[in-house]
Amino acid sequence: MTQSAMTGSEAMWGKRGDMIVRGQLPFNAEPPASVLASSEITAVDAFYARNHGPFPDIASHQWRLTVDGVVDKPLTVTYHQLTTDFDQHSVVATLACAGNRRAELLAVHPIPGKDPWKHGAISTAEWRGARLADVLAAAGVHREDGLHVEFLAPDVAQEARPVQSYGSSIPLSKAMSEEVLLAWQMNSQPLPRAHGGPVRVVVPGYIGARSVKWVTAITVQPGPSQNYFQALDYRLLPPDADPDTAAPGEGISLSSLPLNCDILVPGDDAEISAGPLTIRGWALAGDGRSVARVDVSLDDGRTWQQANLEPAISRWAWRQWSITVETQRGPLSVTARAWDDTGVTHPESPASLWNPRGYGNNAWAHITASAR
Amino acid sequence: MTQSAMTGSEAMWGKRGDMIVRGQLPFNAEPPASVLASSEITAVDAFYARNHGPFPDIASHQWRLTVDGVVDKPLTVTYHQLTTDFDQHSVVATLACAGNRRAELLAVHPIPGKDPWKHGAISTAEWRGARLADVLAAAGVHREDGLHVEFLAPDVAQEARPVQSYGSSIPLSKAMSEEVLLAWQMNSQPLPRAHGGPVRVVVPGYIGARSVKWVTAITVQPGPSQNYFQALDYRLLPPDADPDTAAPGEGISLSSLPLNCDILVPGDDAEISAGPLTIRGWALAGDGRSVARVDVSLDDGRTWQQANLEPAISRWAWRQWSITVETQRGPLSVTARAWDDTGVTHPESPASLWNPRGYGNNAWAHITASAR
Repeated sequence: MTQSAMTGSEAMWGKRGDMIVRGQLPFNAEPPASVLASSEITAVDAFYARNHGPFPDIASHQWRLTVDGVVDKPLTVTYHQLTTDFDQHSVVATLACAGNRRAELLAVHPIPGKDPWKHGAISTAEWRGARLADVLAAAGVHREDGLHVEFLAPDVAQEARPVQSYGSSIPLSKAMSEEVLLAWQMNSQPLPRAHGGPVRVVVPGYIGARSVKWVTAITVQPGPSQNYFQALDYRLLPPDADPDTAAPGEGISLSSLPLNCDILVPGDDAEISAGPLTIRGWALAGDGRSVARVDVSLDDGRTWQQANLEPAISRWAWRQWSITVETQRGPLSVTARAWDDTGVTHPESPASLWNPRGYGNNAWAHITASAR
Repeated sequence: MTQSAMTGSEAMWGKRGDMIVRGQLPFNAEPPASVLASSEITAVDAFYARNHGPFPDIASHQWRLTVDGVVDKPLTVTYHQLTTDFDQHSVVATLACAGNRRAELLAVHPIPGKDPWKHGAISTAEWRGARLADVLAAAGVHREDGLHVEFLAPDVAQEARPVQSYGSSIPLSKAMSEEVLLAWQMNSQPLPRAHGGPVRVVVPGYIGARSVKWVTAITVQPGPSQNYFQALDYRLLPPDADPDTAAPGEGISLSSLPLNCDILVPGDDAEISAGPLTIRGWALAGDGRSVARVDVSLDDGRTWQQANLEPAISRWAWRQWSITVETQRGPLSVTARAWDDTGVTHPESPASLWNPRGYGNNAWAHITASAR
């Protein structure tokens, strides 16, 4: 059975039936916001899917990882070696697509050829695997400033110019951080094929594009990857740039997730009953900082109340928040903003963040609803 | 001669005559924006002064530094020992008062009892001294997560509740970073008394309040300093909080400088000649990140041009930028915003950043002028 012949539930890769499917091949889907709000750890069947090609089908016993480049002892690791020769570690980490909340940017100005992700291209799981740092150390990695670690996988992206398999890189300094894993478990289950099984990279605090699924090759090298998805895509271009003619290396390469938050309940344009309303959402400070405060406004930012923050479940995960307010009959406008532990907040408006590929929308969250 | 008897140029502590003096005792003064724009390294006579008490008068041979707390070998260091027993290092670092650009917040809503700093409570110098990490290592500092390093100085602050000498703290992880110095030189001169001589702390990337002048005591301890200026002041309170009744520890303790930028030339409300105009300013990414792009708009953010960035002179210093535009007769509105190397920009408006003590204004920079 080829992927293109799959239909109905088979084509959903075990996902919930209420996922918002952005594309079947490559498979791209996000859960409804209310499902994301229901738990701090996202169930595997609700976890967003963001892909650039058909899923490789690699049995664990066939999987191999090569590690080479600026290392003293290039090596090849089997699944058995990875899962038994290295210490195992778990990290609860939120992954987020750089295009999450693109729908708000699209409402400002069109962004041709990019999926209109709403609130759901973000999810949180417990990942388990070996530290990338330990595998790199086993290969005798050189510890020089300015090196980068490239990840390559076999999934072929038709959208790339030229067509090529997926790849990406992160700075060696991040790669050697203890939170970065070569993971083979997700929420205590074997890593599903749809999420990069048998083995994927998990780079907590970075945009999801750097957490390369089905990774089979790692190269330590002097500069960032020349792969399309590092050198040309996943870059923040100025508003006046043309993404079709942008040169490799143009714009700002996306890496750390920015301070951000969102409102998950009530949903966009929800109809609610007047009276007490519990508003729920998430906030994330990005790359190791923590969320210090979340403010909610019902009058478009003139006055604010502080939301209740759930305890931090991990340095690398979102913090869910909630606040109960009294609503009157009529239209309801809810705005939320987060502050990190250094006293920084994010920009007010998607209009000022619009960019040609629609990445990095970390404007204050805003939804409208109506109470009756 | 007592300080209170000083008048005229003596009371200026060697500063330029055109400094904008915010107070004589304690001495607080900022240079005109055009002076800041004239060089990447700020001359000592133009460097901003932000103080909370009269300047201690400590001869080098009398200065002593005690280092104690969670260390194995508490020690006392003389000036001679500090300057000869430890390796010497230089760092070019921008210091900025957390209250820089408060004037724009004051225009939104009053902030009683706080100085209306405009563009000048920020300056850049080359600092030379010993690494704090080396001195802490000599004292046998414990390397435990969560420890803090407190700095105490003899300058007495009448504004503190209760009246107390100045103190502050930083996390041990930052204190052990190579850029943090115990400095005795500023721009190759002996550190002037007005800038903390004979020896001060310099914490690049953090708000200026943590770079404690005239430091005489360092304590490694389990939590942040209980000093007024750590536990009560230099904290970001929510807009609805009352700073007079805020409890110690309330709000967000300020540490890393936020991503920020400013326009230095032309000055506020300048009258210029229509035709080509070179606009100049600075951008700073805060705590070790770098500035990737500065955008300038002449139509209040509808369209943007990219400014020319000067080469980075240090990971810890501002980057000066400039752009030459063509101006027509009439009112001129200039807006600038910066982006860091992770693709993050800062909030649009001071109105959304207003807080009861007026700290951390990192809104997009904006000035108005007129061309004729």
